[in-house]
Amino acid sequence: MLIVQKYGGSSVADAGKIMNVAKKITDAYGQGRKLVVVLSAQGDTTDELYAKAREISRDASRRELDALVTTGELQSAALMAIAVHKLGYPAISLNASQAGINATSAYGSARIKKIDPERIAGELERNNIVIVAGFQGINKYGDMTALGRGASDTTAVALAAVLNADCCEIYTDVDGVYTADPRVVKNARRIPSISFDEMLELASLGAQVLHNRAVEMAKRYRVKLVVRSSMTDGEGTLVCSGEGRDKTVEKTFVSGLAVDKSIARIALVGLIDRPGIAYQIFALLAKEKISVDIILQSIGREETKDISFTVAKNDLEKTLEALEAGRDKIGFGSISHDDNIAKLSVVGAGMASNPGVAAKMFEALYDCGVNISMISTSEIKISVLIDAKDADRAANAVHDKFMVEMEG
Amino acid sequence: MLIVQKYGGSSVADAGKIMNVAKKITDAYGQGRKLVVVLSAQGDTTDELYAKAREISRDASRRELDALVTTGELQSAALMAIAVHKLGYPAISLNASQAGINATSAYGSARIKKIDPERIAGELERNNIVIVAGFQGINKYGDMTALGRGASDTTAVALAAVLNADCCEIYTDVDGVYTADPRVVKNARRIPSISFDEMLELASLGAQVLHNRAVEMAKRYRVKLVVRSSMTDGEGTLVCSGEGRDKTVEKTFVSGLAVDKSIARIALVGLIDRPGIAYQIFALLAKEKISVDIILQSIGREETKDISFTVAKNDLEKTLEALEAGRDKIGFGSISHDDNIAKLSVVGAGMASNPGVAAKMFEALYDCGVNISMISTSEIKISVLIDAKDADRAANAVHDKFMVEMEG
Repeated sequence: MLIVQKYGGSSVADAGKIMNVAKKITDAYGQGRKLVVVLSAQGDTTDELYAKAREISRDASRRELDALVTTGELQSAALMAIAVHKLGYPAISLNASQAGINATSAYGSARIKKIDPERIAGELERNNIVIVAGFQGINKYGDMTALGRGASDTTAVALAAVLNADCCEIYTDVDGVYTADPRVVKNARRIPSISFDEMLELASLGAQVLHNRAVEMAKRYRVKLVVRSSMTDGEGTLVCSGEGRDKTVEKTFVSGLAVDKSIARIALVGLIDRPGIAYQIFALLAKEKISVDIILQSIGREETKDISFTVAKNDLEKTLEALEAGRDKIGFGSISHDDNIAKLSVVGAGMASNPGVAAKMFEALYDCGVNISMISTSEIKISVLIDAKDADRAANAVHDKFMVEMEG
Repeated sequence: MLIVQKYGGSSVADAGKIMNVAKKITDAYGQGRKLVVVLSAQGDTTDELYAKAREISRDASRRELDALVTTGELQSAALMAIAVHKLGYPAISLNASQAGINATSAYGSARIKKIDPERIAGELERNNIVIVAGFQGINKYGDMTALGRGASDTTAVALAAVLNADCCEIYTDVDGVYTADPRVVKNARRIPSISFDEMLELASLGAQVLHNRAVEMAKRYRVKLVVRSSMTDGEGTLVCSGEGRDKTVEKTFVSGLAVDKSIARIALVGLIDRPGIAYQIFALLAKEKISVDIILQSIGREETKDISFTVAKNDLEKTLEALEAGRDKIGFGSISHDDNIAKLSVVGAGMASNPGVAAKMFEALYDCGVNISMISTSEIKISVLIDAKDADRAANAVHDKFMVEMEG
C-alpha cells in the first residue's frame, strides 16, 4: 500500500512539530506502508523570504524570487529526513530535480508538466521513506520554479497520481473540511465526505484548506484525497467523486459555507450605454491579468448604466490604474471602490435543483439585518456581497439556518 | 578582462550590505569587466541551519545536513541577482548544479572534482553578471554537497582557475591580510603582498582571512589572488608566487603573526619506553580522523617517557576517549589535558635561513614574562604554545619586536 502524505508549514514550524510529524510518518511506515511525504516550508519561512527580496527590490525577477523561496522546502525536507533517522527509520530527502518534477517555465506560478518517478520508485524499492520538497519544479533551463502559493498540495496529488498511490493524505492544522470556518462560525461541523466539485467551490471561495489546483488534479486523475489534522488522529474529510459518498450528506443541499474578505468592489458609474462596453472593460482588465469575480450590471436608465464587479484586494490599485488609463476609450462618469466588503457563499451539490436554498439564505440575512449589495449564483453555489463588518454575524446566521434545519 | 569576486557572509548579511556589494559589482562591470561572483550565506545563516538540525538530532546524516545548509548560499545568490537587477544591470544566479561544480561524495567536506564551465561561459557571453552559490558542489548522485566551512573561497579560486580569470578577488570584512590580528595587536599592519606558502602557514595558523584549500588551489593553478575589504576601496593584499613580490617585503623575514586559541594540549605521562610507541598513539588518532599538530616527546628518564601534543579543541573529547579505549594496548600512566592554551606563530619566507628569528621571538616573550610550554618550527614558521591568558600580550610583544625593528 502506497500513501502520499503532505504536511503544511504550520505542521513543521519547529523542531518539536517536526518530531511529531516524523512520529506520524514512521507509525504509518511501521504498519507496512510505503510512504512519500511532501512538505511545505516551515511556518512563515516563505513569507519571510519574499519579504527579504522585497526589502531589496519591489520589482524582483520572478526567476530569482523562485530560486530564493524554493529553499524553504529544501530545508524542511532535509530536517524531516534527519528527524525520521533520529527515530531509527530509513529516509531520504529529494529536491524537485531529484524527484523528477518537471514544470513549466512560468516562474512564480509554474505548473507541473511531467513527473519522472524513477528516482522516487527506486528509493521506495530500497524501503526508504521518501521526503519530497513541495511547491517546486524544475524547468527546461534547470531552474527551480515555484508552483504558486499553497502548491505543495498540488505536488502531493501529482505524485499520488503518477505513482498510482492508494491515497493522498493532506495534513493540516484543522481536522478536516468544515461546513464553515470554525474560528468564525461557532456551530461549524466537520464534513465527513465531499465531492471534488463542491470542494473546488469551497476552496476557491476562501476555505483555504486545500489548494484549488490540487483538487482539480485529484478530480482529473481520480486520486483519493483525505484532509486530516497533523495534531490529532481524527478521520478527517474524504474528498472524492460523488459516487461513494456518505448518504446522509448526499441528502443535504448545502455542504459548506465560505467567507472571503480579501476582495474589493469597483463601480463604474455613468457608462454610455452602447454594445460592447462590458467587453471593452473586461478585456482591458484581462490584458493586465486581473481576475474579475462577481459582475453586476444595472439596468440602463436614460442613456447611461453602471457596472460593478469584484477583484482581489491585492489587485485593487492595479485595476483602478488600468481603468483610469482607459477612461477616454471606455467613457464613464466616475469610479468608486470599496474594500470593506466580504463575499459570503454557500456551496452544495443539489443546490441548483432546489430553489428554496437561495430564499433561505436571503431570509437568514434579512433576519439578522444584513444588507446584500450583490448576488451571484452557479450550479452549486450562491454568493452574496455584504459589508465586511457584518461577515461573521451573517456567516453564523446562514450556517445555523441551513445546518440546524438539516439536522431537524 | 574576467574577474572572479567572492564576498563572505558578513559582506551580504542584510539588504543594505547586499546593495553595497551590488554597487561594487556593477561598478566593476561598468568598467567593461566580465564578472563571476561567488557568495557565502548571509551572516550567521549557516550556523543557524546547523543549529536547527542539532535541535532535532545530534547525529544527523551528513547528506541531509548538506541538503539543509547549502540553501543559505542559494538564498544569498538569488538576493544578489535581485539587487544587481535593481541597479539596472543584467545578472543571473546559479546553483552548484547549474554552475557545473562537480564534487566528491564526501558530504560535509566534499572536494571539487571538476567544473563544467559551459553554462557560466554562456551566461558571460550573454553579458550577464554570473552569481554563483559558494560552498557547494553536486555529487554523482545529484545531491548537494557542502565543501566545508569557509569553502566559498575555494569555489571562487576553482572557478577562476577553470575560467582562466585574470584575477580572483576575495572580499571580506578586513582590508587585506595583516601582520597580525588587528583586533588583538594594536600595531598590526596590512601586508601589501605575500607568497602562497606564507599565506598557507598564516591561514592554517588561524589568520582566518583565506580558506586554506583556496590558497593551495591558487598556488597549484597560479591564480592571482587579492584579498580586499568589501567596505572600503583599499588595495588589499596580493597573494601570489614569490617572484613578483614587493622588494621591501621580500627583505623582511617575518611577514605575519597568528594566534590560535582553538586548540588543546594532551599529555600522556609514564609511557613505557619502547620502539613504535609514538606510532601506536598517532595511528590510533589517525584512525579516528583526529589531526594532531605540535608533538613534543620528552627525553626518556628511567624506563618511562612522556608525549605531549595538541589537537583542535573540538576534537579534545574524542581524543581522550580514543586514548582511554587504547590505554591497555598503549600502556601509559596517566592522561592530562589543558584547553586554556594558545599557539602563537610567526611566519616568514626567509626564516629558516636566519637563525636570529627564533631567538628574537623568545626574547620578546621573555621580556614580557610569558612562559613557553612547547616549541615547533618549520621552514617558514616558528610556533610556541603559551597560556591562553598571555596570548594577546605575547602577540603584541612579538609583533612589535619584529615589525618595529624591521622598520628601523
